[in-house]
Amino acid sequence: MKVRRSDRLIDMTRYLLERPHTLVPLTYFSRRYDSAKSSISEDLAIVRRVFAQRQTGLLETVPGAAGGVRYIPMAGKEEAEAFVTGMAKRLSETDRLLPGGYVYLSDLLGTPEVLREIGRLIATQYVDQHVDAVMTVATKGIPIAQSVSQYLNVPFVIVRRDSKITEGSTVSVNYVSASSARIEKMELSKRSLPANSGVLIVDDFMKGGGTVNGMRSLIEEFDAKLVGISVFAEGNFSGDRMVSDYTSIIRVDEVDTKANTLHAIPGNYLAKNAAHFDHFKA
Amino acid sequence: MKVRRSDRLIDMTRYLLERPHTLVPLTYFSRRYDSAKSSISEDLAIVRRVFAQRQTGLLETVPGAAGGVRYIPMAGKEEAEAFVTGMAKRLSETDRLLPGGYVYLSDLLGTPEVLREIGRLIATQYVDQHVDAVMTVATKGIPIAQSVSQYLNVPFVIVRRDSKITEGSTVSVNYVSASSARIEKMELSKRSLPANSGVLIVDDFMKGGGTVNGMRSLIEEFDAKLVGISVFAEGNFSGDRMVSDYTSIIRVDEVDTKANTLHAIPGNYLAKNAAHFDHFKA
Repeated sequence: MKVRRSDRLIDMTRYLLERPHTLVPLTYFSRRYDSAKSSISEDLAIVRRVFAQRQTGLLETVPGAAGGVRYIPMAGKEEAEAFVTGMAKRLSETDRLLPGGYVYLSDLLGTPEVLREIGRLIATQYVDQHVDAVMTVATKGIPIAQSVSQYLNVPFVIVRRDSKITEGSTVSVNYVSASSARIEKMELSKRSLPANSGVLIVDDFMKGGGTVNGMRSLIEEFDAKLVGISVFAEGNFSGDRMVSDYTSIIRVDEVDTKANTLHAIPGNYLAKNAAHFDHFKA
Repeated sequence: MKVRRSDRLIDMTRYLLERPHTLVPLTYFSRRYDSAKSSISEDLAIVRRVFAQRQTGLLETVPGAAGGVRYIPMAGKEEAEAFVTGMAKRLSETDRLLPGGYVYLSDLLGTPEVLREIGRLIATQYVDQHVDAVMTVATKGIPIAQSVSQYLNVPFVIVRRDSKITEGSTVSVNYVSASSARIEKMELSKRSLPANSGVLIVDDFMKGGGTVNGMRSLIEEFDAKLVGISVFAEGNFSGDRMVSDYTSIIRVDEVDTKANTLHAIPGNYLAKNAAHFDHFKA
């Protein structure tokens, strides 16, 4: 039975939002709603316009027999700025300061809206690059990896510092923790990452970059390729950072353990993504 | 400027899908689209009908001055059955069997579509109950907790077996691992769970139930209340299980380490949720 335009638009919006970066043939919608392809094309033009106006994302059209549409989630400039500014304020809250100058983030990284936005922002940056998998290290990076993986619609893999029998055979590397100058070990299940995969590293907090550097070694061991490094927050680090090319959403720039205060500012995310925000202007 | 109905329906659908269980006042939409409340009411009636027909979820109306609409994600019967059957088949794949009778799940629990569906299914079960937080234990339960927390729109908390400085003060309990009969320790950041919270425990795999039982003790220590226990998969366990009232999506019923085969069947999820699937019939 032919489905009305209003009904089609609602269900189509839901269908596309749930399948980012997935090519949906026009014939699929045409069958799903028992409607002519020309009507579906008109529907998609409306969805495309509204998604662009409301900065939900882009609706790409792939022409030809094997073509269709693809929804690419992208954050807009105002949304990104509002989130980054809001988070800098939240991270500056005094009661987040823990002994040793660490910052308590578990509440934010356990809140669905915050994770959704972190995922949208990081996914926006890598929208034009070929990411096959998102990589993080247990434990606190996992929610970020999962959220990014949803928006890019690729799997994520979890590197572990402890050996677990439920991972099967693993590949391990040693790495130097820049903060403590100790040698540590991390490992990843052998079957979790195919060779030549493009890998995006994400983590919750970066100090000296030792952990991220360890993941970079693991990527090499798997004959995979590093696409980029994105962290939610970076801390001040007095020594030489082991990683130079990375993106941070927030930067904790001052920690005074005597006065028990800390101060956070936007990281380099907004500056690095200026070009991406222009997508919606076209 | 007044926004057209077609445009309103698309943006409204997106807005509601991103904010499950959140009451949105009609006046909000009325202002957002510069449209009369009567038009918004008509829009919402269409969204409600399509969401029910396509088994996306329920759109609840709360009448009165403080009223509005609330989107409640719910999985339909066909969707749940198809997912459970498909997963039972995937879990029966021979190469998942690891030494010691363990089952490799990391690929499935790192795939966005699988996690989305697990989250939708578990959230459907607790739709009428008061859940304030989802709890899990690191590491493999985290993606499940996060997905459920998105659909219920409540925070999740991560219990840890290792002490981490970035968690601040913690509360810890000892628990007995039913599989190994060893005494272990788990802990949760003190500030992560307010007293009287309704807590839903989720995990990836349950054998003897020792870990889940440990989380139950932690909930008591926090003066919080247990709402339910849901796991993705349960294994066969020859001894007395420490937990009796739980829901499993999949059950691994036969593991033959000599022949290197395993067999999985649907868990008790479908039977336990028969009543929930009737929601869409009304």
